[in-house]
Amino acid sequence: MSRERSFWGWGWADKFPDDAGRKGLGDMAAAFLGGAPFEVRPAPSLAGVRIPAPKIAIPDALSAVASAELRERATHTYGKGFRDLARGFAGDFSAAPDFVARPRDEDEVDRVMEWCAKEQVACIPFGGGSSVVGGVEAAIGRGYRGAVSLDLGMLDRVLEVDHVSRAARIQGGVLGPALERQLGASGLTLRHFPQSFEFSSLGGWIATRAGGHFATLYTHIDDLVESVRMRTPRGVWESRRLPASGAGPSPDRLVLGSEGILGVITEAWMRVQPKPKWRAGASVLFAEYGKAVDAVRELSQSGLHPANCRLLDAREAMLNGVSQDNQNVLVLGFESADHPLDAWITRALAITASHGGACPAGPKLTSTGKRDQSDEAGSWKQAFLEAPYLFNTLVSLGFVVDTFETACTWDRFPALHAAVVKGMKDAMKRICGKGLITCRFTHVYPDGPAPYFTFLAPSTHASQLAQWSELKAAASELLVSNGATITHHHAVGRLHRPGYDKERPPLFAEALRAAKKTLDPSSILNPGVLIDP
Amino acid sequence: MSRERSFWGWGWADKFPDDAGRKGLGDMAAAFLGGAPFEVRPAPSLAGVRIPAPKIAIPDALSAVASAELRERATHTYGKGFRDLARGFAGDFSAAPDFVARPRDEDEVDRVMEWCAKEQVACIPFGGGSSVVGGVEAAIGRGYRGAVSLDLGMLDRVLEVDHVSRAARIQGGVLGPALERQLGASGLTLRHFPQSFEFSSLGGWIATRAGGHFATLYTHIDDLVESVRMRTPRGVWESRRLPASGAGPSPDRLVLGSEGILGVITEAWMRVQPKPKWRAGASVLFAEYGKAVDAVRELSQSGLHPANCRLLDAREAMLNGVSQDNQNVLVLGFESADHPLDAWITRALAITASHGGACPAGPKLTSTGKRDQSDEAGSWKQAFLEAPYLFNTLVSLGFVVDTFETACTWDRFPALHAAVVKGMKDAMKRICGKGLITCRFTHVYPDGPAPYFTFLAPSTHASQLAQWSELKAAASELLVSNGATITHHHAVGRLHRPGYDKERPPLFAEALRAAKKTLDPSSILNPGVLIDP
Repeated sequence: MSRERSFWGWGWADKFPDDAGRKGLGDMAAAFLGGAPFEVRPAPSLAGVRIPAPKIAIPDALSAVASAELRERATHTYGKGFRDLARGFAGDFSAAPDFVARPRDEDEVDRVMEWCAKEQVACIPFGGGSSVVGGVEAAIGRGYRGAVSLDLGMLDRVLEVDHVSRAARIQGGVLGPALERQLGASGLTLRHFPQSFEFSSLGGWIATRAGGHFATLYTHIDDLVESVRMRTPRGVWESRRLPASGAGPSPDRLVLGSEGILGVITEAWMRVQPKPKWRAGASVLFAEYGKAVDAVRELSQSGLHPANCRLLDAREAMLNGVSQDNQNVLVLGFESADHPLDAWITRALAITASHGGACPAGPKLTSTGKRDQSDEAGSWKQAFLEAPYLFNTLVSLGFVVDTFETACTWDRFPALHAAVVKGMKDAMKRICGKGLITCRFTHVYPDGPAPYFTFLAPSTHASQLAQWSELKAAASELLVSNGATITHHHAVGRLHRPGYDKERPPLFAEALRAAKKTLDPSSILNPGVLIDP
Repeated sequence: MSRERSFWGWGWADKFPDDAGRKGLGDMAAAFLGGAPFEVRPAPSLAGVRIPAPKIAIPDALSAVASAELRERATHTYGKGFRDLARGFAGDFSAAPDFVARPRDEDEVDRVMEWCAKEQVACIPFGGGSSVVGGVEAAIGRGYRGAVSLDLGMLDRVLEVDHVSRAARIQGGVLGPALERQLGASGLTLRHFPQSFEFSSLGGWIATRAGGHFATLYTHIDDLVESVRMRTPRGVWESRRLPASGAGPSPDRLVLGSEGILGVITEAWMRVQPKPKWRAGASVLFAEYGKAVDAVRELSQSGLHPANCRLLDAREAMLNGVSQDNQNVLVLGFESADHPLDAWITRALAITASHGGACPAGPKLTSTGKRDQSDEAGSWKQAFLEAPYLFNTLVSLGFVVDTFETACTWDRFPALHAAVVKGMKDAMKRICGKGLITCRFTHVYPDGPAPYFTFLAPSTHASQLAQWSELKAAASELLVSNGATITHHHAVGRLHRPGYDKERPPLFAEALRAAKKTLDPSSILNPGVLIDP
């Protein structure tokens, strides 16, 4: 029997801790907050959820690929953001799609879209369902007779590998682990590891411009895309396999970030690579955050291109168990399949030392391809992968907890950081009585960092959704008013629309709307995402 | 008195050789071809050109910024491709715009576009006028009362420098040397050096996705753009300064490559950097071309990111004077403002040696910021910058001569290279009796190279244009039918339309047309470029 996915929260159902486990995690969170009430409530049962009856029936033409079973509809109702988990844990599945279609090939994708267009039914592309911005939720507004969740999970194969050019043709619905398993058989890897890796899809990464493994250079999935094949209600859109081109605006760059409003990504040629053989890593400690930021800025402008360059502020380091003594920790790493990295790490540590960074353990160099798991980098990686499960639990206990991320130029970062930390502390104090906010850099660029904030505040099951909404709005407003972006790699969806609408040029929204009208004349695809229909 | 630009050809008028100088170059070209006739004809005089009278008069509203003087109209008639020089040298300026406008600020840009929209007059944005694809020529088709060349040359300043983020706000009309001079005063550089550097503009680079200095990583201007400000007939389009964002499809990526059909780029925040201090370079010789290609492929996949990685085939090396003995030459270079490059060049030369590459002179390392001008890299750079002047002369002597460039994946390169060399040799033999074709790589990517071909064939003043047209069509067809792109960095303009129309997804063209209709409802901007109006 196959392992069961949680119908309301992140990941495998069996990873949701029992009462005692949840109590333990609640105690820990409360301790971080200096005391906070929480309540261990039983997990919801599928049989007990509140879900509306389907408004539309599955037509005969789609009966082979569609299902209106309770579990299917429930698992396709939401993504995996705070609001999703809170509603799911409370058994509220009021936004459920009327049915779920799982096409087995591109023709069946077309059949679903054709039917939706004919019947004026919204069609919501669904990859792994890991959206944290309402990107897969049928909050479609008026004007539709219903909504279908279009799950691409059957399109899950690596179709072709080009060893010479280091590229692979891969179907859009494949999830991270299956993708890496199939590429691994050819000795290759995509090396795109978002936090959602286990339960997110290639097509979803492309549609949302996901952020991956590399802290520099190949930060977004964008940089790994060689060409894209997309089905639209008007037919196929396929770009040519090219390492680069200067022929007009890039067609792929209009697909990247299109979040399912222009078409359904069925295949892509992706740039792949052999697994790294050499690694060099170090954890560098800074007493002063400002000096750590300066060190990372110099690193980002050095041309050394570290694969990892994640600066955790003191509180983030403590929460992740990589530092106990109020130090800011820079997790630094280089990797290569081609050459030893001594010169790279040596110069990087000279830069960090010149800003007062201490590296008591020294650099770790390996040539086996394995990461040293005993150090802070290893601890951090473990915490990174487990975080979404911890998120399930904290939401289930009635806390308000969330992350938000952004990017800004270096000149603006000190003011942004100060404004966000103060603004969110003040807001949590006002709304929840108190709260905690931490920051790390996930990616860095020569002209600025991508800071990632986590906040935690005490609340109750009755008020957590309303309080979270206020705090999320405050966070978004702080980003946009301080010249940062509403999202570096979490996408826009429906949740980030207010911030996105202020950020993007108004004329770009008009151009995008015109492009959508051309490709999706009935406006069935993911209505409400990015632009109004 | 200021130095005078050639009204018909590339660059400074005084650089056009006298009769004896032209004869010497003609003899050299003929020798390369194994004998060929040519004719030294006198340079055209401005007074003697054939140019139609303006069809429309300058309106009072634009009298302060517009001119219909002969020199202005003639220098804004064409770009700098073969067809442009051949027509210009022959005194044929039949495609001249009716007048030239040189707005001094954004408001005046708007005034020109408003008037054009009201009067149904085509508006052709003009930066440095270095297009080789008919991108600035008023070949506008029917439906327009006339054409105005909109020269952005007065918008020529660096407005703001952010030293912390290493970025600068720069006006779109500034030419390369003035841009570098102004940045240099702040100790910074853009380091974008296309062959057209002296006479091309920042806005033109962005509009055409120009290819610059770096052979890897920051190959196109795209990668150096932080944000763009564009005036459209519908108003301003301005993106936020950000190091990166994942908020929807990138607005900047729709401007990059838009070739003046969506708006006029008036400003951009660009990523800049300090001048390199360390350099490491080498010239590596290969007897076999296939092994040289394999070496470059491994280098491009190594993660070493050389700044220069230009493989010249034996004929190209000979033409450029960097090799006399039928060797293929790889010009390899690393540069850094941060660190010595010993480890980088050492590993790179180990890779080239493993493919049979010889480096008799060994690597050259400097820490002064200066390039060693005595070696092959120095000779090659000099030839690179002088090439457009040589082009003037060869066209004036009645030869057929041109370059075309592309990119393809590594797996396709051997077949593409063989097909292009054979196809062009056959075509030149058939059309001109004989001919020469060479290849170099200008840029390389992990998944493929950007090959750049040069061809030369004997012809006469009477037949060179017709013969060139046949050869250019053959070249374009060879690229597109062999899975390569119609252009890596020369843009599409009007000349590359047939190839481009086959390459880009048809639905992308429809989306782009819809976007243009939104931004430029009267369709006045650069009609015929990229898409039909």
